[in-house]
Amino acid sequence: MIKVVKIGGNVLDNEAALRQFCSLFAALEGPKVLVHGGGALASKMQERMGQQPVKIQGRRVTDSDTLQIVTQVYAGWCNKQLVSLLQAEGCNAIGLSGCDGNVVTASKRPPLEIDGTPVDFGFVGDVTPASVNRPLLESLLQLGLVPVLSPINHDGKGTLLNTNADTVASSVAAALGAELWTCFEKDGVLQDVNDPSSVIPHLTEASFGSLKEAGVIADGMLPKLENAFRALRKGASKVVILNASRLLEGKGTVITL
Amino acid sequence: MIKVVKIGGNVLDNEAALRQFCSLFAALEGPKVLVHGGGALASKMQERMGQQPVKIQGRRVTDSDTLQIVTQVYAGWCNKQLVSLLQAEGCNAIGLSGCDGNVVTASKRPPLEIDGTPVDFGFVGDVTPASVNRPLLESLLQLGLVPVLSPINHDGKGTLLNTNADTVASSVAAALGAELWTCFEKDGVLQDVNDPSSVIPHLTEASFGSLKEAGVIADGMLPKLENAFRALRKGASKVVILNASRLLEGKGTVITL
Repeated sequence: MIKVVKIGGNVLDNEAALRQFCSLFAALEGPKVLVHGGGALASKMQERMGQQPVKIQGRRVTDSDTLQIVTQVYAGWCNKQLVSLLQAEGCNAIGLSGCDGNVVTASKRPPLEIDGTPVDFGFVGDVTPASVNRPLLESLLQLGLVPVLSPINHDGKGTLLNTNADTVASSVAAALGAELWTCFEKDGVLQDVNDPSSVIPHLTEASFGSLKEAGVIADGMLPKLENAFRALRKGASKVVILNASRLLEGKGTVITL
Repeated sequence: MIKVVKIGGNVLDNEAALRQFCSLFAALEGPKVLVHGGGALASKMQERMGQQPVKIQGRRVTDSDTLQIVTQVYAGWCNKQLVSLLQAEGCNAIGLSGCDGNVVTASKRPPLEIDGTPVDFGFVGDVTPASVNRPLLESLLQLGLVPVLSPINHDGKGTLLNTNADTVASSVAAALGAELWTCFEKDGVLQDVNDPSSVIPHLTEASFGSLKEAGVIADGMLPKLENAFRALRKGASKVVILNASRLLEGKGTVITL
């Protein structure tokens, strides 16, 4: 069974955590794909270049200058640093953005109405399982390669688009019928946010609904879990939400429909 | 016969030239590989970030901050922009840096003695035909993919290294027994630098030696030609130096041993 592992800022923004993660990911058995976000580095780079990051409802507004910066940071530095560290651990990683071999296409997001005003997010794209090039990923896996995907994708007409790494990971897992392993800084979805050991071992749509209604699961966990159920409904075989530093144990919150 | 095409700053620094080149390269028949440099964008980006580019004898001194910038520019923006434009032209390009699938390794250049003082160029690497992963390039070509190589390579131990794109191109051509097509802004090697139509149709090591002695070939052409003969001696089947805008005519200066 293919595993699609997603990492975010908590791993990418910390060199020691990044090195530890690469060593664990390299040791993970079986065919696998890594999907990474960009962490805080893109905002830092924007600030260093005299540009103020603009976010609306947590999403980065991406004008052409911002697109160049996020492409440089995500597809350039983050992706190649990850791949070179994985290679050093004996994992035959190959870093790809969506344009590479047309592996993931995206469609430019139309302006969204927010509080009655249309907001254009610029060079931001949406990805679905249908926009994933499954035959190419399978060919690369057959060659013994481990695809490492950045969240920079393209529209197939010459334009790069910034996309959400969680959506890329869930779309790839759905397209491959794979397991989706979403890493973050906690050991799983918690019953009590103040008790790090209160991991909920298993969630279904039904139990998620009750916990959401009771206010046990809220805030940042909601989009993560909605993304997980979307992946399952579209074909992912299983979703695990777990701590990046406990990747080899494979323990966390297992999510099924 | 595989063609390895090298482009440099005159194409990368000009959007119209870049788009024209991508359209021509996409139409070039047969298996092919593209190798690109970084042009002037890396220096511009360094300046924008408040860093003064340092070059000694034309070579960029690459400290860790510079390495991050050139990786962002070459492996990120230049590479992905090229690949997305090629995809839009129907060319199934796949952008790779040396770490990707371990396609090109490099060895860190030891400090060089210049005017009696050792100069450390930092994260700069040297590439040879032996450091090219020929089986991977052949597998990708067999999948119908067109590798697009950035000059960012790695040492296999987790460190990225900035390398010379001309040397990458000649090493790849030699390793594949391919033709090396080096594009630049003139129609070929000129007999008279002031007459753009005075293209020398054919050069051998013997005729190059005489023209060099007579001072007909000098300055910037010397390293280009020395690189061409090195590629031929190491296994490249032919070298053509030509104008990027006349790629499909395939005419320029043909170089053989």
